[in-house]
Order: sequence, then C-alpha cells, then structure tokens
Amino acid sequence: MGSLADFFTGYIKFDALGFSLDSSKISMLENVLREFARPTAEAFEAMERLENGAIANATEGRQVGHYWLRAPEFAPNEAIADAIKSTLRQITAFARDVHHGKITAGGKKFTHLLCIGIGGSALGPQLIADALMPENPPLKILFLDNTDPDGFARCFKLLVPYLETTLVTITSKSGSTPEPNNALNATAEFFFRSKIHFPSHAIAITCDESKLCQRARAEKWLAVFPMWDWVGGRTSITSAVGLLPAALYGIDIESFLNGAAMMDKLTRTREKNPAMRLAQCWHVATEGKGTKDMVIIPYRDGLGLLAKYLQQLIMESLGKRLDRRGNVVHQGITVYGNKGSTDQHAYVQQLRDGRDNFFVTFIEILRNQRANKQNVTNASEAADYLEGFLLGTREALNECGRKSITITIRELTPFSMGMLIALYERAVGFYAELIDVNAYDQPGVESGKKAAAEILALKKEICDYLSQNSISPEHADAEVIAEAIHREGRIELVFKLLEFLRANS
Amino acid sequence: MGSLADFFTGYIKFDALGFSLDSSKISMLENVLREFARPTAEAFEAMERLENGAIANATEGRQVGHYWLRAPEFAPNEAIADAIKSTLRQITAFARDVHHGKITAGGKKFTHLLCIGIGGSALGPQLIADALMPENPPLKILFLDNTDPDGFARCFKLLVPYLETTLVTITSKSGSTPEPNNALNATAEFFFRSKIHFPSHAIAITCDESKLCQRARAEKWLAVFPMWDWVGGRTSITSAVGLLPAALYGIDIESFLNGAAMMDKLTRTREKNPAMRLAQCWHVATEGKGTKDMVIIPYRDGLGLLAKYLQQLIMESLGKRLDRRGNVVHQGITVYGNKGSTDQHAYVQQLRDGRDNFFVTFIEILRNQRANKQNVTNASEAADYLEGFLLGTREALNECGRKSITITIRELTPFSMGMLIALYERAVGFYAELIDVNAYDQPGVESGKKAAAEILALKKEICDYLSQNSISPEHADAEVIAEAIHREGRIELVFKLLEFLRANS
Repeated sequence: MGSLADFFTGYIKFDALGFSLDSSKISMLENVLREFARPTAEAFEAMERLENGAIANATEGRQVGHYWLRAPEFAPNEAIADAIKSTLRQITAFARDVHHGKITAGGKKFTHLLCIGIGGSALGPQLIADALMPENPPLKILFLDNTDPDGFARCFKLLVPYLETTLVTITSKSGSTPEPNNALNATAEFFFRSKIHFPSHAIAITCDESKLCQRARAEKWLAVFPMWDWVGGRTSITSAVGLLPAALYGIDIESFLNGAAMMDKLTRTREKNPAMRLAQCWHVATEGKGTKDMVIIPYRDGLGLLAKYLQQLIMESLGKRLDRRGNVVHQGITVYGNKGSTDQHAYVQQLRDGRDNFFVTFIEILRNQRANKQNVTNASEAADYLEGFLLGTREALNECGRKSITITIRELTPFSMGMLIALYERAVGFYAELIDVNAYDQPGVESGKKAAAEILALKKEICDYLSQNSISPEHADAEVIAEAIHREGRIELVFKLLEFLRANS
Repeated sequence: MGSLADFFTGYIKFDALGFSLDSSKISMLENVLREFARPTAEAFEAMERLENGAIANATEGRQVGHYWLRAPEFAPNEAIADAIKSTLRQITAFARDVHHGKITAGGKKFTHLLCIGIGGSALGPQLIADALMPENPPLKILFLDNTDPDGFARCFKLLVPYLETTLVTITSKSGSTPEPNNALNATAEFFFRSKIHFPSHAIAITCDESKLCQRARAEKWLAVFPMWDWVGGRTSITSAVGLLPAALYGIDIESFLNGAAMMDKLTRTREKNPAMRLAQCWHVATEGKGTKDMVIIPYRDGLGLLAKYLQQLIMESLGKRLDRRGNVVHQGITVYGNKGSTDQHAYVQQLRDGRDNFFVTFIEILRNQRANKQNVTNASEAADYLEGFLLGTREALNECGRKSITITIRELTPFSMGMLIALYERAVGFYAELIDVNAYDQPGVESGKKAAAEILALKKEICDYLSQNSISPEHADAEVIAEAIHREGRIELVFKLLEFLRANS
C-alpha cells in the first residue's frame, strides 16, 4: 500500500482546475528521474521551438500548430493568428444562425447533422459529441467514417424522414482521401434521388484550394471552413474539424478551448508538469520502447470513446520505424480500452491474473453531472459503486505488481475535456522527444493508400481481361489469369480478387 | 508473396457455407504442426468430454453447455434438452406477440427496448443488434451496461417520450451483480416517478431462484426467461441472453442458431477444422504464451463491436494465473481492434512501422447486403475500395514480416454471425486445452467485486466517523481519520475517498 508520503511524491494536484495526476503506482525512482534530466530539458526546448513555429514535422516540411488554435496570440505570425480567430468567429456565428433559424433548409430549421470524415476527421468530433452531449441538443448527430456501402445504407435509412432538414459536413484536409470522398458521393446522390438540392445542405472543412474546396465553391455549397497544413488530423479536434460539429451540436466550444488553453499553460512550465510526468511514466512503464500496452479505462459512459481517440493520437504519433537520426527503432505504444466498470467484466480478469504486459491509466471523474440535474433516484449509490470499482481495481492491480496511473477530474465538462485532450497532446509530443521520433508524420498511412491503389489497379486489369475474353469470374483460374496479365508475382492477390468478383457477380 | 501452392496449404474453404480461413500469413511449418499432434488430439478429446456433459469448469464445479444451446439433441439429458427447446419456443412466441400487439403496454404497441446487463449480458446482445440490425426494426434498442448514474440520466432522457411503450430486460445470471442491480433500481424508480407501472414492462433473464428471479415473481413482472449455471456469461449469446433481445429487435434467431450449429458440426471433425487451425495459429503467433496481441479488424461498419466482444470472450477465458495443474503461468492473449478501413487512419501506422508485438485477424465480408437493397448509388465502387484497403494492408504487413490471419465470409447475415461466434467459442476452448488453462472460470472478476465491496465498506466507516464527529470532508485529514478508524494500512485509500467525498459534498 505504501505511505501517504510515497503517494504524494507521485501526485500532482491543481485544485483550481479540478485536476490531478497520480503516478505513484509507476515506480519513478529518483535515479530514473535524474537520467531523464537531460532528455527532459531537450524535450522542453524542442516543444518551445515547435510552439514558436519551427518546422517540427520535418518529413513533410510543416509547422505543427495545434497549440495555437487555443492561444492564437502565440501563433508565429499575424496571418495565422487572424485565420484562427476569424474561423472561430465564423464557426460561432454559423452555429448560432443554424440554431436560431437564420440559416435554414428552405425555411425549415435543420434537425440533423451528418458528419463525413475518417481518422482525425471523425474521432475528434465523435469523442466530443459523445462525451459532452448536451441535455437538449439542437440537432441530432450521425457519422460516416468509412467506405462501407452497407454503412452508408444504414445511415441513409435513418435519415430518410429527415433528409430535408439534414446538414452535412465533409471533413478532409487534402480532399483526396478515398473514404470520405466515396461517402460524399453516395450522400450527394442520395440527396439527388430524394430531389433535395445537396449544395444547400453541404459544408466543407478542408484546406484552401483542395479538390474538395474547389468542388464546394464550384457547386456553391452552404459554407466552407478552413483547415491548415500546420494542423495534423489527429490533433485537429480544437480546429474547425472538431469545433464546427461540436458548436452545431450545442456544445460550449469556448469553454472547451479555454480548458485546452489552461492545460497548455500548465504544461509549458518546467516544474510540476503533468504532461511531462505522463511522458516520463510511459517511458518508465514501457522502457522507452513500448514494451507494455497502455490500457485506458475511464469510469464514465460518456468517455467510452476516449481510449479509441487516444489510440489514434498515440499510436499514429509514436508508431515509427525510424528515429529522427535515421536509426531503425520500430517504436510505438499499443493503446486499448473502453470504460469502467464495464471492462471489469471483460478483460480485467486478464489484467489481474494474466500476462503482465500492460499498464493502466484510470480516468476518475469525481462528480455526477447529468444524474443530479435529472434527479436520478439512486445516483449517489450508483456513483459510490463506480468509484468503489475503480479504487478496488487500482488497488488489486497494485497488489499484484501491475502498474497504473490515475488521472482525476472533478467533473466531465467542455472545460475538463479540453484539459484532458491538451494534456495528452503534449504528453505525446514530449514522449516523442524523449525517444527521438517525429510525432507528426504518418508515412505508413500514405503507403497504405498506395497499396490499396495498386490492388484496385490489379482488379481493373483482371476485370478488363475477363471481359475482353468473355470469361465469367466463376470459370476463371487464378494462375491462368495471373500469367495472361503478366502478374505472376501477384498470383495470390489475383486469387483473392477473383473470389471477391465471384461473390459480387 | 509466395506461390499459390504455399497459400493453399494455409487455406481452408467451405463453399457451401460461404466461409474460409486463411492462415498462410502465419508460418505453420510442418514440424510445428507435428509438435501439436498430441496436444491437438487431447484437446479434441477434452472438447468431446465437455460436449458430453463433463464438469469442464472444475473451479466452479460446472458443466459447460453453450454448444447444446444450438443442438439440444446433444445435451447430456432430457431435462436440459427440454429446457433449451422450451425456452426457445417461449422466446419466439413472446417476440411474435410483442410484434403483433398481443403483448402490449396497456393496449399500446411497445416501441422501445431497454436492455440492462453487463459483461456477457451486454456485449452479446449489443454485438448482435449492431451487426444484424434489421432494415425496419420493430423496436428501437438501447443498453445500460454500467453503474454510471450519468449514463442512466442520458438513457432516461432519450426514453422520456417513449417510456409508456418501453420494454425493459434485466439480464443477470446470479441476480446479485451490482451494476445491473443499480441500473434496475434507477430504471424502476424512473418508471415510478413517471407514474408507469414498471412490472408490466419488465422482463428478467436470470437463473431460477436468483434474487432477481424472486423479485420478478414477487412483483409479477411481464416475463421471466431462464439462464442456467452451465452457460457462462461470455458464451451466453446463443441463450436467452442474446436471443431474446435479438428476437424482439426483429432478428432471425433461428438462422443465427443454425449458423452456430453448422460451425459446431464443422469444428467437431478432426481434419480441416477451422477452430483448431485458429487455435494453432494463436499458439504459433504468440508462442503459446500470449507474447503478441491479437488485433481484430473486420472491414464492415456492422462489425464495429466484434473486437470488443472477442476481447471479452478471449481475454476472460485465457487470462489466467494458474494452469490446471496449479502452476503459475500468467496466461492470456490481449485483444483489441475496431473496424477497417477506419482503423487504417488510427493505428495501422504503428502496425506497419512500429513494434512487431501483434498479429492481425482480418475479417473480410465479400458481398454488400444493405447497399444493394437500398440502391446506394456508388456501392460497388465503395466496396472495391474497402476490399482494396483490406488486401493492401494485409499485403503490406506481410511484406514487413507482420503476421496475419484472414477470415472470409460471403455475406453478413444472422447465419454467418452464428458461424463466426461458434468458430471463436470453440477456438478459445481448443486453445485453452493446448495451454492447459480453465477457459470457463473468472476468479479475477470475483475478486474485483470483493475489492470494490471493501472500498465501499471503508467509505462507510469514513462517513460514519465524519458524521459522528461533525467533521466536514473539506476539513478532514486523511492521516488523522485513518488512525481514528484504525485503518492506518489504508491511508492512501482514505485520502482518495476523502477527495471523492469533498467533490460530492
């Protein structure tokens, strides 16, 4: 159990913010912290350069500016500061006009919001909507975050009765990502078939001059909101990507941004810095090599998507083959989790008794919020159990030598969500500095897109061959076809694609 | 890439079932398979004994009978066979009567279904409802799977307009699990405050003579459906736990059970057995010790909960401290994943470039289903991309030496879902035999409940002391209180609980 003094050396608390971080269940011996002294100092310097506008994403030659989004006064130039501020004004005004019926669907108030996007363009708005769902949202919200036509069909089915009053956001930085493009095309056609003028319902969130931007302007869409190349997808939640859907959904985005700004301020200091502490904990727990998985368990239903959000933020940022000096390092930290106490009935059995291949981060929310407003009868009893399960599990894991971190938040609000996200954004940045990888590129995603394009090209070659020779996929032989189209090295893929064609012919 | 001959040695296909398993991307050398010969034979024998009614869960002295649920003719005695058959008839009749307005809420047709349960009592029905959502479900479905009062409040808020026509199922085998109990109490009070007679809306799914069963009978609930001690929570999806919500939601449960039965039949054979192949793959990929994580990526929106479901099934079954001879083994396999291609924009970056600490299972669905029925315009193009992303990722991972398995299913239907679930149930059973752990107990969950109870007791002691001495939590000192209540060894917990009390006072 340890003494309270031991506990306090691992405990950082910020009363005014209703926030604390407990790292006492990760052994951070003094000499380990001394070892960190130099890399820690360097990480602070690198972060300072980044915030001042250095090209921190060297691979893509880009600045990394998500911290400016909640403190435009720190932006490296007036143009960027103005862009951030004017976009925020534009978002606030647009959402207000939709809510007040000044922007309408031919005189009718909008009732539904369909958000199209993938990766950072989906997870951010999904997390924020789910965690901060207002008591009486002015719009219902739905998401399309894939290129699954059956997923499109499900979503369209739900929207049929409301299509006339449905707003659609399409978020794609480059405007050329296949998944949102396919979803956009299907949605536009769905409006067309329903005889509803799509452009009057459509909003693009994209970089200036992207294909999507050009299309939106040419078709005279309802609105276009900007994205910038200095904001990465996985850190775009405090840009228009996260803020516009949130504002339309009735969430207090000013308070959300304030929370992020306050945490940014707190995590610029060199002492008692919770983001650096978090990064150091990850380093100690995973030996700086990702040797253990990070299990994230927030004890609240509203945070059921947090682990998925952090999975993207952390794994895409840290999962790298090379360090910045070009050494092959195969870095990363695996992240998974859902919510407590639910997960105790799923995998806590293994955490307690099975392989010691993880460390847990408990997210503790001290206060009920909705239950009290709505007078849920036994709210305080239910909350006692929730707290009891969290502390009991933390204790039991500690007893069998399993490491954990506990992040405590007084109440789940837009402000505290802003804090939490900014905390993790900076912790990832710091950790990447400690292990010397570029946290801001994602070469693997690009090569994934390329691999898919090659498969589609191969499929076309097969289809062309079959049609030119009047062969049905049922009667096609993979080896014969592969040879005929000179793709002997791809015979297995030819076989797989023929199976796919057979099922769909 | 390998030749087609290499591929075929790792490929098992069942054309009539529209199902195949490709293990070619896990190197299964002949000598490895020879090493497995004896454990494999023993695993088959153990499974046969289990299906014949042996006490396969020795810890709890229980039979393990989830396979009987879809083939009651194999049940070890008439009483069990009759119970299965009559329950199935009862479920089918009940759902039909609700759909046809024979069972009503005071003359009004039921419109909503709230399912209360946690662990296996939630994940099964959640998965099946999400994956197999009918085009026009006769009821809307919601879940309460936690003891979060804010989660209760969210759910109740949504139900306010429909409460009069809301059915509620409470699933709890023992009837004493705190989470569903708290949710039940809150829900009953919510009905009471809304002046609606809860018992006429309430259905229990529980073991005979459990507390929940007694309450349901005493209060004359609408119905009680049986659970049995020979069905574990994580394998209860083909019992009333999964079937009743599914049937009420309009899913073809007969076809679902048939799919499971067909896979059971297939995986009883000693040759070309996909469940055994899967178990062997897991053994090879994780050295029989869970040294790699299992990443599950189904390329369909409808299977977005599959990984979470399998996470429970696999981690709770395999994550064990002791093997069956009492050796300390700390076994388990970590499972995570969401869906493709979405996850390619989240963590496939790390899978490609980062730590080689995983193997992937791709779930490939060849055919669209909903999109074709609803004439989604660019369905086939979108599906081509989905397939392209799957094959491209599989290929790219293989090129950098990352292992994967591909399970291919022609179409996502109740039948194929039944197959998929039965496949994994038996693979887990086989794998547990290969590593000699009891797949059917969960001692860690029990001790988790106990730990929580201790925390709640400690909290009560603190509250009693504070109130007896008229001290407010704001002015309480953890060390003083711990000493006063003679819990010096629990001082840190006293501190944490005081923080909780302060936030809530």
